Amino acid sequence: MKPTLPKGTRDFSPLEMSRRNYIFDTIRAVFRTYGYQQIETPAMENLSTLTGKYGDEGDKLIFKVLNSGEYLGGKIFNKTKENLLSFLDNQIEKSKKIAPLSLQDIWDNETEKSVLEVLKMHMQEVGISEKALRYDLTVPFARYVVMNRNDITFPFKRYQVQPVWRADRPQKGRYREFYQFDADVVGSPSLVYEAEFFQIFAEVFKRLGTSVTIKYNNRKVLNGITEAIGAQDKFVEVVTIIDKLDKIGVEKVNEELAVLGVTPSGIDKLQVLFTLQGGDKEKLEAIKTTVSSSEIGVKGVEELQAVLSYLEAANFDFSTIEFDPSLARGLSYYTGAIFEVKAHGVQIGSICGGGRYDDLTGLFGLPNVSGVGISFGVDRIYDVLNELNLFPETMADAAKVLVTNFGVDEEKFSFNLVTKLRAAGINADMYPTQAKLGKQFEYADKKKIPFVAVIGADEMANNVVNLKDMVSGVQEKYTVEELIGKLK
Amino acid sequence: MKPTLPKGTRDFSPLEMSRRNYIFDTIRAVFRTYGYQQIETPAMENLSTLTGKYGDEGDKLIFKVLNSGEYLGGKIFNKTKENLLSFLDNQIEKSKKIAPLSLQDIWDNETEKSVLEVLKMHMQEVGISEKALRYDLTVPFARYVVMNRNDITFPFKRYQVQPVWRADRPQKGRYREFYQFDADVVGSPSLVYEAEFFQIFAEVFKRLGTSVTIKYNNRKVLNGITEAIGAQDKFVEVVTIIDKLDKIGVEKVNEELAVLGVTPSGIDKLQVLFTLQGGDKEKLEAIKTTVSSSEIGVKGVEELQAVLSYLEAANFDFSTIEFDPSLARGLSYYTGAIFEVKAHGVQIGSICGGGRYDDLTGLFGLPNVSGVGISFGVDRIYDVLNELNLFPETMADAAKVLVTNFGVDEEKFSFNLVTKLRAAGINADMYPTQAKLGKQFEYADKKKIPFVAVIGADEMANNVVNLKDMVSGVQEKYTVEELIGKLK
Repeated sequence: MKPTLPKGTRDFSPLEMSRRNYIFDTIRAVFRTYGYQQIETPAMENLSTLTGKYGDEGDKLIFKVLNSGEYLGGKIFNKTKENLLSFLDNQIEKSKKIAPLSLQDIWDNETEKSVLEVLKMHMQEVGISEKALRYDLTVPFARYVVMNRNDITFPFKRYQVQPVWRADRPQKGRYREFYQFDADVVGSPSLVYEAEFFQIFAEVFKRLGTSVTIKYNNRKVLNGITEAIGAQDKFVEVVTIIDKLDKIGVEKVNEELAVLGVTPSGIDKLQVLFTLQGGDKEKLEAIKTTVSSSEIGVKGVEELQAVLSYLEAANFDFSTIEFDPSLARGLSYYTGAIFEVKAHGVQIGSICGGGRYDDLTGLFGLPNVSGVGISFGVDRIYDVLNELNLFPETMADAAKVLVTNFGVDEEKFSFNLVTKLRAAGINADMYPTQAKLGKQFEYADKKKIPFVAVIGADEMANNVVNLKDMVSGVQEKYTVEELIGKLK
Repeated sequence: MKPTLPKGTRDFSPLEMSRRNYIFDTIRAVFRTYGYQQIETPAMENLSTLTGKYGDEGDKLIFKVLNSGEYLGGKIFNKTKENLLSFLDNQIEKSKKIAPLSLQDIWDNETEKSVLEVLKMHMQEVGISEKALRYDLTVPFARYVVMNRNDITFPFKRYQVQPVWRADRPQKGRYREFYQFDADVVGSPSLVYEAEFFQIFAEVFKRLGTSVTIKYNNRKVLNGITEAIGAQDKFVEVVTIIDKLDKIGVEKVNEELAVLGVTPSGIDKLQVLFTLQGGDKEKLEAIKTTVSSSEIGVKGVEELQAVLSYLEAANFDFSTIEFDPSLARGLSYYTGAIFEVKAHGVQIGSICGGGRYDDLTGLFGLPNVSGVGISFGVDRIYDVLNELNLFPETMADAAKVLVTNFGVDEEKFSFNLVTKLRAAGINADMYPTQAKLGKQFEYADKKKIPFVAVIGADEMANNVVNLKDMVSGVQEKYTVEELIGKLK
């Protein structure tokens, strides 16, 4: 009888929604000024669209949707039937062979795994589930680009803000349903877009009142470094170790590189990564020297230098960005610039990330579509603003004034007034039934409505409104026109 | 390789999204001025929360979500195993008894249904699926109210706009995933809220530029009518017949009522429904006479009269509303006022509906919570605006100007300019690579960007911008400040 929520899912209350909308609307407004346009994709994708895109671990975390009841009796059942039949036949064959073992014994011994596999096959392949819930926004976006390639004008700048679902074990701060806010531009190798993402990050967090550092690197620089230290055949391993720098420190990193087989002179050469001095321009010059023997490494540095030159032309504030040659962003599909945003003043991981990739849509048969994208960690940004008390005091969607309701005649007068306030664009509410003033003030108080417009016989007779400021307690009389002016 | 979408689902392109956002934002803005606040609930609910709430037919259309892969190997498999075992044992027992029939024969004959049932049991009850996708916004809202009863200040005015999923057979205009836009106020019997919904409907469609009629009735009036014609024991049947008036006409309605056993004098009395003259006030007085012997009928009329008196006090335009005593809104849970909105100038069903209900949350253990709610049919409203050409020519989120990209120096100048335009709040884009002017104009044309700001050597030297109006073809020179003024 007592209802509950599925594990790892959340309701959002009016207060939470107004705060989330504040974040979403801020990011959205910035994207719009940069010419990004919104798309949406369905919550359900074909299972075949999603499987194999997130690695074995990811595949396990995809929520599968059962085909509907009506189908169970129809065409899918027909397939199921055949498979279930041959499964049963097999079991029977085996039970005959391994007599006098009972079916229970068979199960307990050798065939447990095969039974499980058959069961899974039934559900996943035979057609009991052909659909699954969106796991991220990237793969559905790639699918969208491929399906609409003839209608899209490239470069295509899109943003998308929708929930995704992952069957992760729920824990603090990790949910089975959460929103992603992604923006990508596909179909152009232009570094202008990398520069724009720096501006977008800076503008969003300026508007949200949060101080951040935008860390960046280029995967080609990491390629160059591994080449320069003679470990190009161990790129993944070297990057994995360097990526741990923040957690384990320089000494441990050097140790692990030695264990991996990097030569002492290689490790020595690498130390420039940890000892860079000066501004980003100087750091890039120093790295350029380190990787000078690597064509791809030099290219990576030059790409970042080009991005900085755009930003310089636009008078960008360089104090918010930081070149970090140890930044790797995991072992994802990035091939060029990579970004990561850290908030100041709170102990929390990165709140945004992103980078350039060479081949988003190849998996769906459209190769060589280069793109660059970023993603805002909305739940973490919420936590940062909450912890630092940065949410605005009054939210755009809360009622600003409650009009009282005292009697049959007053009620009509009040309804007329609240109608006028709303017509003037003021978020207003009216107490729904005739009640004592104390009760109506309590209602305003609980709903955090900052003003109450009191309408009694006196006010009606003089055609005025008695406005109470719920914070200061001050009451003042206004005409309707004055009231509208005050509340706007 | 070639990706597709699951049947009955859709992508929304940038143009569709901007139009949908225009509808959503318009409705949202109106709700805010009326003091409604947004909530969201998760896409997945416990299966037990949803089943049994939508009738047998509805239950079949609920999309169930499989538990994740990790569980198949764990606790759920343990249950599944037992059931599968006893199922197999049973099959074997039967096959022994009905020898010499093969398992295939058994299946084909008597046991098909039981096998199917076992299979369903496995998936639905044993624990392979414990969750399901939201089928509407009403039941999750009821669940939310019950779970948060101690934190909510009643009356609680909430709106909610989220997708819902139904395993309906897809057809034109009917999708398996579609958005609902609902608003409800729960915890008060006040008729003020009914009056507000009339205002909200009128305001939303005024802002959207659509001409509509808001039809209304009260379920108590229908109760009164069935009592007045001596058919109170056949309420459902009588209402079902009256509900068909638009489709089958008066004569057929009378015929069907006679077949149902309504007396000739009863049918005679009913004719007032079909012959009402004058404005709504006169119609209500006439109906009041018809149902004068029915206490509940009189109450229904008086409720509607009270609603109209509020609207009159607020100078509401009565020409947009129409009392329709034959309006029934199906056999839903409504117990008071009911609404339905029809658009003018298009052949399409109702685009909004709603009404008052007495007991939203009783199913979850919180009885006697009265409420009234409305729902906007967003897909239909989209079709109406589209058919009548009512979408604004330029959408808020499209880029207004494209800045050209001609050469290494021009590019920097252009990037500086586009940065300034964006800082001034103008949606602006810059062509990402150095290309011929024709190609850049074509890009603007395809993206429906109305202006192109051309930056060449001349413009740079004179610190001006050559702005081309893509519709008229006119080109004019502006300083940056003038350009900002023109585009804002």
